[in-house]
Amino acid sequence: MGTEFLKIMDFEEVREIINNIKIKKEVEEVFLEDAYRRVLAKDIHAEIDLPPFNRASRDGYAVIVEDTFGASEDNPVTLKLTEMVRAGESPSKKVEKGTCIEVSTGAPVPEGANGVVMVEFTENKNGNIYIYKSAPHGQYIAPRGSDISKGDLLLKSGTLITHDKTGVLGAIGVENVPVFKKPKVAVISTGDEIIKPGEKLQYGNIYDINSLTLSNAVKNSGCVPIYSGVAKDNYDDLKSKIEEHLDADVIITSGGTSAGAGDVLRAVLDDMGEVLVHGIAVKPGKPTMIGIIKEKPVFGLPGYPVAALMVFHIFVSSFLREMASLPDNKKSDMLRLRISRRFYSSRGRHQYAFVKVENGIAYPILKDSGAITAVAEADGYFEIPKNVEIVEEGSEIEVIPLEVF
Amino acid sequence: MGTEFLKIMDFEEVREIINNIKIKKEVEEVFLEDAYRRVLAKDIHAEIDLPPFNRASRDGYAVIVEDTFGASEDNPVTLKLTEMVRAGESPSKKVEKGTCIEVSTGAPVPEGANGVVMVEFTENKNGNIYIYKSAPHGQYIAPRGSDISKGDLLLKSGTLITHDKTGVLGAIGVENVPVFKKPKVAVISTGDEIIKPGEKLQYGNIYDINSLTLSNAVKNSGCVPIYSGVAKDNYDDLKSKIEEHLDADVIITSGGTSAGAGDVLRAVLDDMGEVLVHGIAVKPGKPTMIGIIKEKPVFGLPGYPVAALMVFHIFVSSFLREMASLPDNKKSDMLRLRISRRFYSSRGRHQYAFVKVENGIAYPILKDSGAITAVAEADGYFEIPKNVEIVEEGSEIEVIPLEVF
Repeated sequence: MGTEFLKIMDFEEVREIINNIKIKKEVEEVFLEDAYRRVLAKDIHAEIDLPPFNRASRDGYAVIVEDTFGASEDNPVTLKLTEMVRAGESPSKKVEKGTCIEVSTGAPVPEGANGVVMVEFTENKNGNIYIYKSAPHGQYIAPRGSDISKGDLLLKSGTLITHDKTGVLGAIGVENVPVFKKPKVAVISTGDEIIKPGEKLQYGNIYDINSLTLSNAVKNSGCVPIYSGVAKDNYDDLKSKIEEHLDADVIITSGGTSAGAGDVLRAVLDDMGEVLVHGIAVKPGKPTMIGIIKEKPVFGLPGYPVAALMVFHIFVSSFLREMASLPDNKKSDMLRLRISRRFYSSRGRHQYAFVKVENGIAYPILKDSGAITAVAEADGYFEIPKNVEIVEEGSEIEVIPLEVF
Repeated sequence: MGTEFLKIMDFEEVREIINNIKIKKEVEEVFLEDAYRRVLAKDIHAEIDLPPFNRASRDGYAVIVEDTFGASEDNPVTLKLTEMVRAGESPSKKVEKGTCIEVSTGAPVPEGANGVVMVEFTENKNGNIYIYKSAPHGQYIAPRGSDISKGDLLLKSGTLITHDKTGVLGAIGVENVPVFKKPKVAVISTGDEIIKPGEKLQYGNIYDINSLTLSNAVKNSGCVPIYSGVAKDNYDDLKSKIEEHLDADVIITSGGTSAGAGDVLRAVLDDMGEVLVHGIAVKPGKPTMIGIIKEKPVFGLPGYPVAALMVFHIFVSSFLREMASLPDNKKSDMLRLRISRRFYSSRGRHQYAFVKVENGIAYPILKDSGAITAVAEADGYFEIPKNVEIVEEGSEIEVIPLEVF
């Protein structure tokens, strides 16, 4: 007859238990080219000044500004051109009184100069530069270190390295980036009838759905899935699959959790470690199991694809994102949408339902949790608190997208 | 003195020109394991029924329900057990009147049976099964094809293959998935002073920022960046770099677009193809150039990192997402936030500014477009329409995040 549920726990109680699972964060270094979408594990201080030299910000002439005072279109000042410095070059001369040096945008401003006159306000007559406008002190010079001084804190530990931040790291010459290691998550499906996609479908078999869905959901949570295949629904097979994958940081199984003849995960957890949760007052997802084996959390999700996916989103994804040091995206991505029809919920249980979103309206998907078509149509899901029995047509609900691109 | 701007165009005019650039979409097949985050290029019809057989949805006994009518706790019905079928197995017998066959959840329901009694309401006494509760017709049987019938349209062309959809494809046995090819985007930086990260910084050099930033921004837009290095700021070098990368679908350059001595992209575009845009009434980004060479669009972004990144977001990312068949995320990801201080804008130009977001408040970053620290702090940006000169402190603005995880 199988084991009984440990005790049906409330949603909040389970969240609390998950929050108390110890997380170990490890750091590794990756090349800058590979740092995109990783999370910084240390504060990044600038290793150089930026700009690294006094930099011309316009094409023109580096001058001693006092030489240009009083210059106008009718009454130009004439300066002797002594050199030309393009971006990437080094000046060999200084700017001295009565002279100027031509500079391109991005070129170093030669010593002695304290301003740049734009080329548009000048004329070159045989090496004599006519200046038609006087330059204020410091004009068109970005002084060394004016953007960043060597040693400045530029990016904090915990920062997501989005595309823009990769450029910031490049700018200050970072080659190896300290990031948090991506946690490894073993994904195991259980069930005697389940075969891998690509295998021949015999009578009585169905294709594995959960390994694919959960592996990619693990990626979307900032972790690395380890596709661990299908375990038969018996003690020995599941136990050896779990033993094989204890080098992962987290193990996720699906199937084999219900309080029936097929309940083997419970027995494996009882023997190898500890059961923290078996049975949650949520719908779908009641037979969910959570345990610990050798300090590794094991999430035992229901076998039905809809339930497995929902429980992943409700309980597992925030945990994995926390492990991966990613922000929990639920709050920020939430959409406030109107519901297309009246929706009934079970009193006493937190309920979750998938919705299809079309033209800003949320259509609840009313299919049982075995229905893969429910997943095919889903764009997101919403929560119905346990004391709510009816959500009225047209009322506003908070939809959490399954994934954001 | 370099070329003049072609003509300063309005924001809307440029958008229109970009919308009219011809896009060619190609299709390829990828393995299901590689289909995550790709975009379906064909409608997907189910190749099998789901479930593929009449499937038991509880552990129990497959019965002829008429045999159980009248059964109660005080007055059980007794049926002879003839076989046991676990998930993944095939029944060898039929259920006949007065008999039953034990089934596990997920097992095929044997012929003859028209309902399943849950194990909880039965007792097995030496092969005689006592049934304590009558079963309604069809109970706990998911009939073949009840979820999906072979041939049903399951996922439409254009669907993003999010993690949940990978499971749907697996469920119906899809092994090779038709998806849109990811467009290839060559990213070229220009500038004589620019060196690659990792090279030794000599006096007068600065590290390349834009190649990194833009390459990863290209990834975030669903395309494949081709890192094409740094071109010197002269006609021959830039031309040969562009020629080298005409096998890409799009070319993005940065630098070398301003109307000054360094303006070489304009000359290359004039010779090799056609200039569509040179000069836009936006801030930052005025010297932006757009052209076509052999039907390949070329986006010439400003050299300053802040301006290059902003112009990418304003004009290029939607175009790339359209090419990659991804949804334009700007609208859906937008956050309505209050601005921390009064913000002044230039009349007659669309203006864009980066903001840092903290505790739900948007802090505009008031730094010039050469400042990499502006990018280091940025979380998103907002638009100030061209007829607005002042955004008042505390008013609501629409912030578009730079990237969503």
